[in-house]
Amino acid sequence: MILNKNISFSSAVATMLMQPMNANSQGSVHGGDLVKIMDNIAGIAARKHSRGMVVTARIDELVFHKPVFVGDIITCIGQVAYVGSSSMQVMVKVLVDHVDKDSEPEIAISSFFTMVHLKDGKPAPVEKIVAVTDEEKDLYKLGEQIYLEIKSKYK
Amino acid sequence: MILNKNISFSSAVATMLMQPMNANSQGSVHGGDLVKIMDNIAGIAARKHSRGMVVTARIDELVFHKPVFVGDIITCIGQVAYVGSSSMQVMVKVLVDHVDKDSEPEIAISSFFTMVHLKDGKPAPVEKIVAVTDEEKDLYKLGEQIYLEIKSKYK
Amino acid sequence: MILNKNISFSSAVATMLMQPMNANSQGSVHGGDLVKIMDNIAGIAARKHSRGMVVTARIDELVFHKPVFVGDIITCIGQVAYVGSSSMQVMVKVLVDHVDKDSEPEIAISSFFTMVHLKDGKPAPVEKIVAVTDEEKDLYKLGEQIYLEIKSKYK
Amino acid sequence: MILNKNISFSSAVATMLMQPMNANSQGSVHGGDLVKIMDNIAGIAARKHSRGMVVTARIDELVFHKPVFVGDIITCIGQVAYVGSSSMQVMVKVLVDHVDKDSEPEIAISSFFTMVHLKDGKPAPVEKIVAVTDEEKDLYKLGEQIYLEIKSKYK
Amino acid sequence: MILNKNISFSSAVATMLMQPMNANSQGSVHGGDLVKIMDNIAGIAARKHSRGMVVTARIDELVFHKPVFVGDIITCIGQVAYVGSSSMQVMVKVLVDHVDKDSEPEIAISSFFTMVHLKDGKPAPVEKIVAVTDEEKDLYKLGEQIYLEIKSKYK
Amino acid sequence: MILNKNISFSSAVATMLMQPMNANSQGSVHGGDLVKIMDNIAGIAARKHSRGMVVTARIDELVFHKPVFVGDIITCIGQVAYVGSSSMQVMVKVLVDHVDKDSEPEIAISSFFTMVHLKDGKPAPVEKIVAVTDEEKDLYKLGEQIYLEIKSKYK
Repeated sequence: MILNKNISFSSAVATMLMQPMNANSQGSVHGGDLVKIMDNIAGIAARKHSRGMVVTARIDELVFHKPVFVGDIITCIGQVAYVGSSSMQVMVKVLVDHVDKDSEPEIAISSFFTMVHLKDGKPAPVEKIVAVTDEEKDLYKLGEQIYLEIKSKYK
Repeated sequence: MILNKNISFSSAVATMLMQPMNANSQGSVHGGDLVKIMDNIAGIAARKHSRGMVVTARIDELVFHKPVFVGDIITCIGQVAYVGSSSMQVMVKVLVDHVDKDSEPEIAISSFFTMVHLKDGKPAPVEKIVAVTDEEKDLYKLGEQIYLEIKSKYK
Repeated sequence: MILNKNISFSSAVATMLMQPMNANSQGSVHGGDLVKIMDNIAGIAARKHSRGMVVTARIDELVFHKPVFVGDIITCIGQVAYVGSSSMQVMVKVLVDHVDKDSEPEIAISSFFTMVHLKDGKPAPVEKIVAVTDEEKDLYKLGEQIYLEIKSKYK
Repeated sequence: MILNKNISFSSAVATMLMQPMNANSQGSVHGGDLVKIMDNIAGIAARKHSRGMVVTARIDELVFHKPVFVGDIITCIGQVAYVGSSSMQVMVKVLVDHVDKDSEPEIAISSFFTMVHLKDGKPAPVEKIVAVTDEEKDLYKLGEQIYLEIKSKYK
Repeated sequence: MILNKNISFSSAVATMLMQPMNANSQGSVHGGDLVKIMDNIAGIAARKHSRGMVVTARIDELVFHKPVFVGDIITCIGQVAYVGSSSMQVMVKVLVDHVDKDSEPEIAISSFFTMVHLKDGKPAPVEKIVAVTDEEKDLYKLGEQIYLEIKSKYK
Repeated sequence: MILNKNISFSSAVATMLMQPMNANSQGSVHGGDLVKIMDNIAGIAARKHSRGMVVTARIDELVFHKPVFVGDIITCIGQVAYVGSSSMQVMVKVLVDHVDKDSEPEIAISSFFTMVHLKDGKPAPVEKIVAVTDEEKDLYKLGEQIYLEIKSKYK
């Protein structure tokens, strides 16, 4: 019997205060530092779902919508959106909280990470994921679409 | 009119995978690195509640219950438990997730951080905090007790 | 008179020895660390061509072809492939050198970074780039294709 | 025959210049970074006295008396104050030197670290410590008091 | 048959953008950070030539000719100049590029690193190096001179 | 009246435990990381003596006598040995403590750093230094000799 798992189970979250050491001389945080944070969160979400070792195979459509500044509180969220045979599509977002302004957090970065489950150094099967809420069902469809787009490039 | 705020509003969470660069030669993560992570989370929780600049004034009863190892996924949680005139008692915990074992996360570290709200470099008033659930009410009582213990040392 | 510039002028290269601090417990280097290195090189190439401030706007088709291990000598190369009105398509590759084996370096990672030239915080025009050699002409075509694909997603 | 050892033998000292990378955007050094430095010094002092592996078990009464700024020269001092059966009370202080002002260094942070001596992963006995000077005898009494306070919490 | 190798084969280059985290409060980059970059490049050049493990044995005449500032693009170049029995003289330079000014890069730092080839933890023979161009022949002479100067100190 | 100062006043010391993140894959600490530590200590000693801003101008005869390993406790000592018109010769040593062995610490690295005192960005006068003990007088002579050797190269 294969135990299916819910998207909510494997989601990973990190709230962080952006420090001067992550910034360029204009005070905005380096893209590279933010992608490193996102890669860590993608890895945790994929590891939670697959319960094994995972590696990053691809990053697609990583878009910087808004700059992140020193002093900003960001929330980085990773969710396994769709599962292929041995790969997982993990949607990773960075939100900027507006602590002083009482307004909603805004999306600063969005992206899809393709994570591969490894066993003894080789790709290994991953259980399917289950979308429960409407929001999760939308995420699942988006993940599937990205998965098929990537696959079509290698035909 | 003073707007009271709930404990849940200001809580801060970070999920992280412990990396080899944080470890000693036995594979366990340095206490100092973990306290640095906890201090960041304490700062975010206090900043969310006070909506201003905050500094760490004290750390009390920081207890390492279980070692944290490289490869562990930890969740660091900070909650404002009690508010003095210009200070906040923030309870910060580190939990270790057992991704491979299906068991509950365990508390690795617990502690109380005293954070002070600053305006123009001086301690400034902080709005009271509101405990809603039973769990939050217990946390509030614990925070108040720590606050009074600390205060009694300076009489 | 606008001075056009050659692709070779703005290319940026970094040779590095991968250190234990960049690795996970299996000895392979974190994807996030490698993307951070690539983002730095993309920024240098874009800054050399535009002679101004640049920010990362997108990362597309970042593919990890082969793992990178601690002790590997890598060469990260960034080349401005195509120029839009205020953006640059920078192709960034990571090669692994085989110092001990006398064989050719292999591509470990490939990607396209979209960098935007900023003046006073706003997108500013960038001079066209000139492809001279046959290899550069191929790169230019590839960069143009990626540029048009990205543009078509926002119609 | 057990060789008793003096407090002065195991004390550890580090002088450091506080760098911009340790600071928040107001120019004061993060509490978390300072605790990390203190934890390292506590570990060295405990290791010197016990001559074996040590881990941090608790941090108590860590008080930030004065802020530390970028450009400050600090001196971090760790001294084993009292020894329990397998634990050591290490007093750790951070002093700020006033190089430009000709005045005495000031205490910026004080604290007590409880370090445990480990052998094969289990708590192992530690030799008693000997206080020689009057200052060391005061330190010993203070360490003993902290030790008894902590112990009383677990009855 | 011993395969001689050319100087050009083993040279190593790294282009980098100097970040705020490498700087003191005046905005110039720490000497220590720059020497760390140079040591890495010296190690790569020596490893490329010897095709084995190498360690740094000495650093001589490391001269800071011009300060390096945050925002500068530097190029660090390492070339094996001369080979002793088991040691290599590696000339390492740091150049500052003037992206905005159209002027030639300037030498910021020059130095000679003595690297030793190790096999099973002991110094091991290194193949001689071949200077082809006139510039390489000058470098070879300079490397030989430094090598003899160092050797004369130990007679 | 010029206040002369003693060598002992400006000496700077740091005790550190070498961490895995500073090591290569053989477990020995990178030369570059050690030089960075030494440069910091040289800067503190020079700043204490000159009471102003200082920069590193040269590093000479930096010799690695013994390797430093992860887990070693090192002591880095910097002493102003001799003062020129606006420069200071700082002798910097790294000692390895043998905590487990009861033997004396051994010299792992020795070196001379030339530090220059700056005022408004320009070299500024430094007060002479006073050697009191016999050991300090030997150090003074050695510093003077290095100073004259360096000076003779620029005639």
